[in-house]
Amino acid sequence: MRPAKSAPRVAVVGATGMVGRELVSLLERRRFPVGDLLPVSSGRGRSSVRFRGRDIPAAAPDPAALAACDVAFLVSSEEVARRFGPGLARRGVWVIDDSSEFRLDPGVPLVIPEVNASALGRDRRLIAGPNCTMTGLAVAGWPLHRAARVLRARVASYQAVSGAGRAALAEFFAQGRGLARALAFGRDGRAPVLRAPRARALPRAIAANVIPQVGSFDAAGCSGEESKVAAELRKVWGAPGLRVSVTAVRVPVVRGHALAAWLEFAQPLSPARARRLLGRAPGLDLLEAGDYPTPLDTAGRAPVRAGRVRSGVGSRELALWVVSDNLLKGAALNSVQIAELLLRRGWLRRRA
Amino acid sequence: MRPAKSAPRVAVVGATGMVGRELVSLLERRRFPVGDLLPVSSGRGRSSVRFRGRDIPAAAPDPAALAACDVAFLVSSEEVARRFGPGLARRGVWVIDDSSEFRLDPGVPLVIPEVNASALGRDRRLIAGPNCTMTGLAVAGWPLHRAARVLRARVASYQAVSGAGRAALAEFFAQGRGLARALAFGRDGRAPVLRAPRARALPRAIAANVIPQVGSFDAAGCSGEESKVAAELRKVWGAPGLRVSVTAVRVPVVRGHALAAWLEFAQPLSPARARRLLGRAPGLDLLEAGDYPTPLDTAGRAPVRAGRVRSGVGSRELALWVVSDNLLKGAALNSVQIAELLLRRGWLRRRA
Repeated sequence: MRPAKSAPRVAVVGATGMVGRELVSLLERRRFPVGDLLPVSSGRGRSSVRFRGRDIPAAAPDPAALAACDVAFLVSSEEVARRFGPGLARRGVWVIDDSSEFRLDPGVPLVIPEVNASALGRDRRLIAGPNCTMTGLAVAGWPLHRAARVLRARVASYQAVSGAGRAALAEFFAQGRGLARALAFGRDGRAPVLRAPRARALPRAIAANVIPQVGSFDAAGCSGEESKVAAELRKVWGAPGLRVSVTAVRVPVVRGHALAAWLEFAQPLSPARARRLLGRAPGLDLLEAGDYPTPLDTAGRAPVRAGRVRSGVGSRELALWVVSDNLLKGAALNSVQIAELLLRRGWLRRRA
Repeated sequence: MRPAKSAPRVAVVGATGMVGRELVSLLERRRFPVGDLLPVSSGRGRSSVRFRGRDIPAAAPDPAALAACDVAFLVSSEEVARRFGPGLARRGVWVIDDSSEFRLDPGVPLVIPEVNASALGRDRRLIAGPNCTMTGLAVAGWPLHRAARVLRARVASYQAVSGAGRAALAEFFAQGRGLARALAFGRDGRAPVLRAPRARALPRAIAANVIPQVGSFDAAGCSGEESKVAAELRKVWGAPGLRVSVTAVRVPVVRGHALAAWLEFAQPLSPARARRLLGRAPGLDLLEAGDYPTPLDTAGRAPVRAGRVRSGVGSRELALWVVSDNLLKGAALNSVQIAELLLRRGWLRRRA
């Protein structure tokens, strides 16, 4: 299928990063109408992306070339978002930014299509995608919030290393290979006390370990990730009074963020009714009672997956378990879904 | 140091298991007065334990030989506990059982020395040690509970594979070594979607994964581990009205159970006051603000370690992070500490 020359020109800034490569692959697999693809990379090394059977070299960022596109996916740093996002939007380019730079800006819609597509506007050309950890909670909790209103949420995360970027994942790979020989019982038959490998990209060794630090700590002792999840959930759900406490933990997993969540409601909500609501929620796969998703079986899949829906403390609280691929629904897929919505509304089209 | 012949005769039933080997090593390192050591193993393979420079072959279980001991550590199955525990206690042997068999029996003290040494009694010769996951929470939460009374607790666990036994740990080792080559970026530069190795000892693959199932699920959807933590915490703290909701998750870690806990109190309790209380709690290492324990740096250490003490949802809730070595304080060490208490009280001594 060769799209008509009337299809939009699409830029991907950060195309050779982990999320960027997923995004380019999704554009092809989901048959997004791409007239021309402009992959952009600010990295020093020459690199290319594969798209529709061709290797397309990534270009250095060029404001004029970007402004000639109809939509620009920014899957890069906050600095890149600041540098290009507002300027391109003013020049009529739809900008879908996956960094945290504009997420809490009152003038910028923070959008998860299954939850708050209504936040999009014909003239709000700069759009933010959410933090990869809160996305699963936002999608799975939304039908429950609509039915019984969440007042308080406690969330413990089990976050994949790919969410920390390429250097962190490379470090995990190296540590994992290095530790493989040490994964053995001691000569005395005891479970080994492993020596922690040196860490650089992450704050501690991650292989055969878990690290309760994602980002840096504020004065109250919350990590950056924990604050993001709370603030973004309030914005996406339109629930400014929602109280959220998060413990964000990195685990030795490649792809797939998992969450153990407790949701306390204003109204009683039984596990059975919650299961019915979740069973028909868009973008969500609810596994059968007794079954549950894990990161390994969720990696590479589009939907958010949930299981273990049960009573928490008292009749107004539910506990549940949610897993989603942090590179897909947590990042690249959500951005592509936003662009698909813009197409369907006729707002995103090739300009003259 | 060769203990006098007046030192107690000590049996360890399950001596060649993972907890058993830690226990024998602790008896030596802590200079527990052992007159004679009787290591017992019900396993088919011949095996021995190393104690004070000698290899002592493990004997098959023999009721008469066990009854001639002064203290018997049972670090084996529920079935072994049933078979030997009550009978030995009736015959005057101090029995310290680490299985779950008698923990909730109203006639059996369930003891963590730092918390409820007062539950021990001169004539209560059958004593239970607690579940390895709740121990860290029981020790770290106890001074807070005494100060402000915990009403509700939510706990997410990050549990080491050694807690699931030798076969599970061997499976993790094999999977970890098998996956080592797959820990690499794809040829297209993307984060790999790993193929899940086959699981037998655990319900899912554990390498590069997390599994929200520890034990089997009851009708309400709680796992066996989750129910144990709640019921045992209520018993050890003497708090029958305490509400506890747990999500127990296995993670690819060798030794060291971690917990993200939210404790809701009857009275306000500030993080600063909580830190002062935790800073002088017995058996507990509180790390400095901004620092935190991880399983890798806690493995092999005796104390429970805590960090990340901060406000939860509202002024009557604290969040904290707790790690302890599940084979030590979670199992073998706690049993040895109970026996040391019995010695100090003069209750455990060599009989004629």
